[in-house]
Amino acid sequence: MSDLKNKILASAKYDLEAIEIALKQNLKPYLDLVSQVASHILFAGGKRLRPLLMVLSARICGYDSNFDKTFSIMFEYLHAATLLHDDLVDEATLRRGKLAAHSIWGNSIAVLVGDFLLARALSIAADTGRLNVIKIVSEITENMSQGEIHQLMRKGQPDLSEKEYMEIIQNKTAVLFRGACQASAVIADAPEKEEKAISIYGFNLGIAFQMIDDLLDYTSDAGILGKKAGADLEEGKLTLPLIYALKQADSKDRATMESIIKNKDFSAGEFKTLLELLHKYKGLKYTKELAAKHIAKAKKALVGVFKPSETRQLLINIADYALARKH
Amino acid sequence: MSDLKNKILASAKYDLEAIEIALKQNLKPYLDLVSQVASHILFAGGKRLRPLLMVLSARICGYDSNFDKTFSIMFEYLHAATLLHDDLVDEATLRRGKLAAHSIWGNSIAVLVGDFLLARALSIAADTGRLNVIKIVSEITENMSQGEIHQLMRKGQPDLSEKEYMEIIQNKTAVLFRGACQASAVIADAPEKEEKAISIYGFNLGIAFQMIDDLLDYTSDAGILGKKAGADLEEGKLTLPLIYALKQADSKDRATMESIIKNKDFSAGEFKTLLELLHKYKGLKYTKELAAKHIAKAKKALVGVFKPSETRQLLINIADYALARKH
Repeated sequence: MSDLKNKILASAKYDLEAIEIALKQNLKPYLDLVSQVASHILFAGGKRLRPLLMVLSARICGYDSNFDKTFSIMFEYLHAATLLHDDLVDEATLRRGKLAAHSIWGNSIAVLVGDFLLARALSIAADTGRLNVIKIVSEITENMSQGEIHQLMRKGQPDLSEKEYMEIIQNKTAVLFRGACQASAVIADAPEKEEKAISIYGFNLGIAFQMIDDLLDYTSDAGILGKKAGADLEEGKLTLPLIYALKQADSKDRATMESIIKNKDFSAGEFKTLLELLHKYKGLKYTKELAAKHIAKAKKALVGVFKPSETRQLLINIADYALARKH
Repeated sequence: MSDLKNKILASAKYDLEAIEIALKQNLKPYLDLVSQVASHILFAGGKRLRPLLMVLSARICGYDSNFDKTFSIMFEYLHAATLLHDDLVDEATLRRGKLAAHSIWGNSIAVLVGDFLLARALSIAADTGRLNVIKIVSEITENMSQGEIHQLMRKGQPDLSEKEYMEIIQNKTAVLFRGACQASAVIADAPEKEEKAISIYGFNLGIAFQMIDDLLDYTSDAGILGKKAGADLEEGKLTLPLIYALKQADSKDRATMESIIKNKDFSAGEFKTLLELLHKYKGLKYTKELAAKHIAKAKKALVGVFKPSETRQLLINIADYALARKH
């Protein structure tokens, strides 16, 4: 699969470079500490997937001005702001293999720099001069905090349903992906049909992306993922592989899983048992298949409306890679 | 002075009631826990000064539609969001005599509900349909987080200058007061002269309001203030009374003050010594006088542009009360 990744990176090279420059320039005028903390989270090897989606969506919608990169970074800011706050909420010490910001600078700075990045994102949205972009961005922010609160309220509770899980990942991930795509259609003055298609693409890509994230939390290892496998479970987060397996399991196996869920300090042996049960009840397979369905939906929306082009192919490759990636 | 307060409350009675209703209705559709936490901070006896300023400013600028109350609550949301985050940052256990939200629900919920209120404020700004209102609100949010970060960076450092103090209180308080006033002028399509005057009023009122807050932190007591006197100092926050006294003091007295500043667990006796030195070097008097100058500026801007009216008088009374209040 690394072929696909290389293909994406090669095609998106100039866009990704322009996004890096826009990110760096935008942070320059602010207090040293703000730039430093923001840079720690912003330049820690992020994929820039959200701004890239905006730039590519703008292109496929025929945007012909020069502000797409500058605008696109608001979605990276929104993402970084939630990472800062979520790592604190989850008491996660690592982020992409480095210490999380709150572990270095403390909770206060993580909260306040997160607020600053949120505010910066909204200022950039205002700079677009387009009310609909601003509405998209403020709704993303509302949805993300609601998704996180919902997740937090249901921490460690084994009766979380698939429906609730879907609501949570829509709010905390998919709405942001959709917003990055839809905002482009707005600034490009794209016809409604295109705005709708690119929004469906972004939304379904976001859902699949989060599902695969949740899957990799069980199957990847620290070296590749930059954090411990099983971290979600340790934080009391029930995700789809486990939710599905719990529903399918017989009462004995369900009891075993529930006891591991309730014990935050589960041993490596217990985690192995859990993994075996996830396999036995096809929780991992089900998650992957459902993610694949959403990727198919995303691509179908795209292909149904936009003519073949290099940009369209790149968006398709990104969707395929979101599903196939190993970290 | 309670006469002045009663006069204000009587004149603003209907507006304040309408603001309460708007606040309650706006929170209804959200997750139970969100409403509960948000209500804890929003309905804990706040003065509703910021939304009231918006409603009154709109009226004096000739606004003739019905959305002023609905819009005005965005400024209470912004205020509540920062209170939630700041109490956590400051590790303050009390807020208006009640337990702070993070003391009840934990840091995570305080962070996430703060984010939600911030997002809600920006959504309401977007609902105004006025780009300039949105710009005002996103700039307020940026400025507030920068002011808080600046304050945090300089915690416990006795060399904080009056200039830096002014920058901090402008960012964390005055910009929000100004925004509430200016946004009204925008939605009222007021002439530039009026927008400018009401902005000057709000900005100077905000500065004076924060100075008096900082003064009362030394002179009021827990029963009235809802938190311990000397709380700012305990949190390492140097405010104008102390900054001025430090500058005026001889080297021996300065050394005494600095040693108390550095010792977070200062005794009641040490606090008394500090208070005496604040009196001796006129730190309290200087602060009050400077606040009075800003109140004079605020009133002058108002009187210079707007004709006498009940609303103008109410805005003047609010300015006078901001200076004269004892809590």
